[in-house]
Amino acid sequence: MTDERFARTPEPPFYAVIFSSIRTPGDRGYDAMAQRMTDLAAAQPGYLGVESVRSEGFGITVSYWTDPAAIRAWKEHAEHLLVQERGRADWYAHYELRVARVERAYSGPEATGG
Amino acid sequence: MTDERFARTPEPPFYAVIFSSIRTPGDRGYDAMAQRMTDLAAAQPGYLGVESVRSEGFGITVSYWTDPAAIRAWKEHAEHLLVQERGRADWYAHYELRVARVERAYSGPEATGG
Repeated sequence: MTDERFARTPEPPFYAVIFSSIRTPGDRGYDAMAQRMTDLAAAQPGYLGVESVRSEGFGITVSYWTDPAAIRAWKEHAEHLLVQERGRADWYAHYELRVARVERAYSGPEATGG
Repeated sequence: MTDERFARTPEPPFYAVIFSSIRTPGDRGYDAMAQRMTDLAAAQPGYLGVESVRSEGFGITVSYWTDPAAIRAWKEHAEHLLVQERGRADWYAHYELRVARVERAYSGPEATGG
């Protein structure tokens, strides 16, 4: 498995932030911000990886973290706070954010799980 | 929030199955199977909803469930078992499946979280 669109996460437990969203029309600086946030997140303590897809305005981004403290620190990162504010004002028609503790993980088809 | 691409989940705790995958080329009956599995999953006890996106072969599907027993029952559903086997053989070049307990949930931009 070498496709870089997959996050390479360790054995559970670890944490996932599931961010589902619908974009407003137009770019409005979104793509540049998204790339910057991807790079910035990857530099944070406790970051494990990210998987992200968007199609026809609807997107799911799952970022993976070692623990809740790492997620909280990223949530409160100064530059990220500004982006969150801009997101609510300009970029997202709606979003759902769910923080979850990953308890089990499988991959395939090389492995059949277990 | 009325967009049906969002799952309408209750207050946590509940469970999420995060399924990230890369498809093999060609349909090979995939789209019909995916629709059937979506309908079948929705009829299972403990099902809460699903969110799914695919673009350029890479997809993320997150299904939501009341508890681990509901996920296990769906995993072991006879028709779903056949589809899982077919998926490993024919449909997926690679997948990652993570089972997680959702501990916190926010939505926006109507709410600012908390």
